Amino acid sequence: MIVFGKNVVRELLNSDKTINKMYVQNNLSDRVSNELIALAKQKGIKIDFVSKQLLDKKANRHQGFVCETTDFNYSTVEEILQSAPKGELFLVLLDKIEDPHNLGAIIRTCECAGVSGIVIPYHRACQVNETVIKTSAGAASNIKIARVNNLNNLIDDLKKQNVWVYALELGGKNIYDVDLRGDIALVIGSEGFGVSSLVKKNCDDVISLVQKGKVNSLNASVACAVAVYEALRQRC
Amino acid sequence: MIVFGKNVVRELLNSDKTINKMYVQNNLSDRVSNELIALAKQKGIKIDFVSKQLLDKKANRHQGFVCETTDFNYSTVEEILQSAPKGELFLVLLDKIEDPHNLGAIIRTCECAGVSGIVIPYHRACQVNETVIKTSAGAASNIKIARVNNLNNLIDDLKKQNVWVYALELGGKNIYDVDLRGDIALVIGSEGFGVSSLVKKNCDDVISLVQKGKVNSLNASVACAVAVYEALRQRC
Repeated sequence: MIVFGKNVVRELLNSDKTINKMYVQNNLSDRVSNELIALAKQKGIKIDFVSKQLLDKKANRHQGFVCETTDFNYSTVEEILQSAPKGELFLVLLDKIEDPHNLGAIIRTCECAGVSGIVIPYHRACQVNETVIKTSAGAASNIKIARVNNLNNLIDDLKKQNVWVYALELGGKNIYDVDLRGDIALVIGSEGFGVSSLVKKNCDDVISLVQKGKVNSLNASVACAVAVYEALRQRC
Repeated sequence: MIVFGKNVVRELLNSDKTINKMYVQNNLSDRVSNELIALAKQKGIKIDFVSKQLLDKKANRHQGFVCETTDFNYSTVEEILQSAPKGELFLVLLDKIEDPHNLGAIIRTCECAGVSGIVIPYHRACQVNETVIKTSAGAASNIKIARVNNLNNLIDDLKKQNVWVYALELGGKNIYDVDLRGDIALVIGSEGFGVSSLVKKNCDDVISLVQKGKVNSLNASVACAVAVYEALRQRC
């Protein structure tokens, strides 16, 4: 996988992901470039200094830095569950988000908000690809992301472990009236169709954001951000 | 200006904006298309039924509908101020947002949240163009947007009228500890540089979102959404 851009490469360098090779544009001498090159050398990463033309062939808007990494390292759901202290689990489950920009934006927000981890389905959903990593501004390297075959099975398992599962959808309880503390999972629906009806039925509760405008609804990644931050406010 | 896509055209048709001409793809017969055509006829809008090839030349992803409108109808700041009941003014001031996707996303969110209006600078900032309108999912037709030469002069005026002006920036008071009720204006900074230092100095207070991640900061449109919804929560 190709990863590029100064901020994204910095996040990658600061993570424990494997970088196979780093391509850096010749004759860069600004402060950030020097810092990134020093960091890469310190980690023993093989650096090739190449022309801008060659980098342009590998990626747009590379800002002089392109890395080849192994494919995205997904976590397992168990790893996420074990990483959170008892009573502080905060999972975000994505029910078929298809747009890589939305997925990247959601990852960036969840990482900023200190969410325990994100779970996406294997099928009919955007996976963590180069566009997603770029849109996440490197955050994908700093948050656990797991994949499952079936979101409903996962929800069943979570409920057995006393995790409270909420679907974020129109027509539910006002989010400001719901207690979002403790071990929780928040299900975000897809851009066009929201949370699928089977998944919604399986959740403990449906919660909604106040919407006062004439346009139907918030963008999926914006709705996710507002809900995640409302949970964070309650949990602080 | 060219406006396209079913949702955006519907919002436009439901607004009081002037549509000079509407181009519709031949032989559309789905429910939404029929609804839009009926709505346009009812409003006396001139419709040209044309080939898909011709529409493809006018816009990408037109979904069979392209409208020619007069340029975006900006409001004045006075119109926004007069539209809000005393004590309920909620302005969003954008300090040099440059990315049309961010501006569109902010407009969509503000419209959903029932913000009184948005103010953008004339210079060194993205204006309301076709990409912005498309990204806003049509919301730009349903919210007042004004332009000013100088944001600092506006802030001075607002303060004289007892509007409390907040800058959203790192390093300020925790937003959850600040009273956001009453007549307020919220200043959102640009993608790369945040709120400019002169503007920040001029604001009554600086407020910040909790950020727990390793990546520096939230995207400008996401930060705006979280702050606007926190204000909405307090004001409900």
